[in-house]
Amino acid sequence: MAEPLDVGVIGLGTMGAPMARHLVEAGHRVTVWNRTRAKEEPLAALGAARASSPAEAAGGADVVLTCVSDEPDLREVVLGPDGVAQRLASGAVLVDSSTVSPTLARELASVLDDGGRLFVDAPVSGGSEGAQKGTLTVFAGGSDAAVAKARPVLEAFSGRITHLGPAGAGQAAKAVNQLVIAGAYAALGEGLVYGQAAGLPMDALVEALLGGAANSWIVANRSANVISGSYPLGFRTSLHLKDVRIGLREASALGLELPVADLVASLEQRLVDAGYADEDVSNLARIVRGEA
Amino acid sequence: MAEPLDVGVIGLGTMGAPMARHLVEAGHRVTVWNRTRAKEEPLAALGAARASSPAEAAGGADVVLTCVSDEPDLREVVLGPDGVAQRLASGAVLVDSSTVSPTLARELASVLDDGGRLFVDAPVSGGSEGAQKGTLTVFAGGSDAAVAKARPVLEAFSGRITHLGPAGAGQAAKAVNQLVIAGAYAALGEGLVYGQAAGLPMDALVEALLGGAANSWIVANRSANVISGSYPLGFRTSLHLKDVRIGLREASALGLELPVADLVASLEQRLVDAGYADEDVSNLARIVRGEA
Repeated sequence: MAEPLDVGVIGLGTMGAPMARHLVEAGHRVTVWNRTRAKEEPLAALGAARASSPAEAAGGADVVLTCVSDEPDLREVVLGPDGVAQRLASGAVLVDSSTVSPTLARELASVLDDGGRLFVDAPVSGGSEGAQKGTLTVFAGGSDAAVAKARPVLEAFSGRITHLGPAGAGQAAKAVNQLVIAGAYAALGEGLVYGQAAGLPMDALVEALLGGAANSWIVANRSANVISGSYPLGFRTSLHLKDVRIGLREASALGLELPVADLVASLEQRLVDAGYADEDVSNLARIVRGEA
Repeated sequence: MAEPLDVGVIGLGTMGAPMARHLVEAGHRVTVWNRTRAKEEPLAALGAARASSPAEAAGGADVVLTCVSDEPDLREVVLGPDGVAQRLASGAVLVDSSTVSPTLARELASVLDDGGRLFVDAPVSGGSEGAQKGTLTVFAGGSDAAVAKARPVLEAFSGRITHLGPAGAGQAAKAVNQLVIAGAYAALGEGLVYGQAAGLPMDALVEALLGGAANSWIVANRSANVISGSYPLGFRTSLHLKDVRIGLREASALGLELPVADLVASLEQRLVDAGYADEDVSNLARIVRGEA
């Protein structure tokens, strides 16, 4: 294995907790912090240290990994009064696996560069299954030196790391990923709810879809949700909505209109308004069934 | 191989011509007819006989395969004055691999049943590549006896045959397939055109997409079209539009609204109106680039 590193992990949610576990299991010296402190306990039981603030988790760390839900949270844990930037040492790297805008990623890289600290935006794809199994896909942005320093940490929980360019490029690639799956999730619900209403044998239908041009990870892994009408996580509708809006804003700033993504965002907002924010995003099928 | 059959093939377009070729190569005695008669010549050169009408191609056939572009054409070649129904023998089977409505499939099955003729709706997925390679996915509807009789013909050009229920079930399943890919094609264009505008390295981006939840046949096989801005067939935009409208009509009759499919149909109509009907449907990316 790689040389053990001192790694701070900030954010122990659906994604961050299993990522931290993989880092402990890979032999790194892990220090965790989470806003809801009780979520640190399972990691402590595995051997992680607990910090009293993001700044303390960053003190003495070779690498700090952040994985939080949205931009205000990320600003707070990095730039806030007890944030990572207060204590991250020169030559150390902040790896952010949250999904935020490329613009914020570039801002954080610039702030940390003042003081010789490195930054990698490293949003992931693969959902909670990928995090549990340690097979996430990482979209990485940053300098070659920053990505090289981050790599042993990323390798602990990912099956594929793609370095796409300077800071912000990882987030731009993640936005592409979220736009590509937006239409695919919505269309899965439309097709399968129609097929069910038409009386088709659904297991045989899904097998047939997987044999042709409709074959996809989403059809293979999310059809069962649509067929049963239950939507366990997976990937939260509210978070996908946030990500699609990042893509829409970034595309709009480049003069591009994305009509399907725009429609899917409006459908997901209806799901959130109807109380389905915390289900898997395959719940777009609820729209077709008239449930939201 | 299977016992050689007398097979009539009506319709030698992008899909029908390679399907007929596979039937000749499988050792069946093939008789072809096409509205534009010159398209029969390459098949005749491979050893197929030529008929002077669909009715003549059906005379003496064990199986007749039709593969035409739309409902009026199918009505003409089956129910017209020189149509298949005029001569198809009792016990023989009409296999229709066109994509039409489940409603028309049930009508043809009913007409042929009068006289003891069998019917299978057998629309396919897999595009022109699948037809060339003989690896199409077949969505089959019909009685067990009809599908059993059709199977040796279907096996000559398909990698997978799924029997989904009585006449019309194959077309309903194909409609599901076309609805599922509708949103996926549109979203591919939106994601990749944004990614390109954001300056991402596109080959590396596509590889990364294929490693996660965005993985699909469409991303793997159609990203190059979007990136290069050229859209060789593939699967014609005008035909996908026809298929999506079948799905929308059938779903509407069941009381379902499909907002994404509805939007994609309107985008594809814009492409048709702008002169792009005969390109591959991955040309939905033209909408994002403001080209239609």
